[in-house]
Order: sequence, then structure tokens, then C-alpha cells
Amino acid sequence: MNNCLFCKIVKGEIPTEILAENDLALAFRDIDPKAPTHILIIPKIHIESTLELDDSNSKSLLAMTQLANIISKQEGIDEKGYRWVVNTGKDGGQTVFHLHLHLLGGRSLNWPPG
Amino acid sequence: MNNCLFCKIVKGEIPTEILAENDLALAFRDIDPKAPTHILIIPKIHIESTLELDDSNSKSLLAMTQLANIISKQEGIDEKGYRWVVNTGKDGGQTVFHLHLHLLGGRSLNWPPG
Repeated sequence: MNNCLFCKIVKGEIPTEILAENDLALAFRDIDPKAPTHILIIPKIHIESTLELDDSNSKSLLAMTQLANIISKQEGIDEKGYRWVVNTGKDGGQTVFHLHLHLLGGRSLNWPPG
Repeated sequence: MNNCLFCKIVKGEIPTEILAENDLALAFRDIDPKAPTHILIIPKIHIESTLELDDSNSKSLLAMTQLANIISKQEGIDEKGYRWVVNTGKDGGQTVFHLHLHLLGGRSLNWPPG
């Protein structure tokens, strides 16, 4: 975890504009946005991927989704709609191995989703 | 909710092969798959979209993610990877207004996700 990019953001070791946070999760903009709104929501503890989700960290997952809903309103995309995407492993396209939820909106998202 | 397609599947009113279920969620294949594995995971209670997620139904959300992890193993895509997608509202491409998590895998998913 020493080299985990997102753990460094949680610790404040990498300057990042935090859009919103709660006890267990925080949110910041994707550095390579694929939509007018493209925000990453991460747990503050190190969870590698969805494969590690279990009863012990379920509060972190709920905190992430609560934060996602707050941000959708904050960004003004709650009524028009948005997409949540979580990538796991190679086929999923996961590039940072610290769980993160992509919140995309501000345009009509296409189908299929990748 | 009388006319909700997914509520009818929950009630057994529409014949559907259920791949797995737990107390609060169930899973079945998307009828228009976009990947070799494309499964929908839904709460058994009627939750319209992510906008309705709150403390009162958080157990349903957790049950959905637990089921998703069971199915990833069942489908043999847990190691290679997969993508979770949840659409909300028009811009998100939501077509059935009963919360559902798309689990896609079995091929390399592209970026952007739609």
C-alpha cells in the first residue's frame, strides 16, 4: 500500500482537489475525464478491488455510494442521469488497484459500456 | 410497481432462469448481452434507481454486491476481471426503472465506458 496512488491522495501526500468526503470515502476528478462530469469516489481504507468487498468493509462501500449521490446533486446531474462504473482486474480495465467508482455524467452515455 | 418488469421476475410472473439469489437480491442474464458474460443483479424490493439508495435499503445494495461476487466466481471471470455498471436516468441510459447492476466480463472491456 506504500505505493498506492489513491492511498497517497487520502493521506494528502499528493495535492488533489477533494470535491466531497465523509468519514469513509472521498471524491476527486478523474485526471483523464471521459465525460463533462467524471469523478472518482474511493474508500479511505485500502481495498484493492470489488473482489475484497465483504462484511468487514461494507460500511466503506455504502459511504462511497452515499457520497456519489451527494456529488450527483452537487454537479447538477442527478435529474438528467449518470452512470456508475467499477472496473475489476485486467478485463475490466482496472488501472489503479485501490477500489474506485467512476461517476460519469453531463452527456448521454452510450451503450455498450465499453 | 405493478408494471415493473423486474418486480414481475422477482415474483416469478415472467419465466426467467435465475442464476443465483440470496435473501435480498437475484441475478439473471441480460436478454441483449454485450459481453460473453452479461448478467443483471437486482434487489428483490422495488428501488427505482441509485437516487433512492439510503440507509433504509442499504442491505439490498450490499446483497447485490455480494451476489455479484458469487456470480463472478461461478462464471469464472473473477481472476481475469470484469466491470460493474449501474445506469441512472436518461443520460445514464437506464431503460428499466428498477435498480440493476450490469456485470460484464469474458472479454477485455473498452474505455471509455460508453
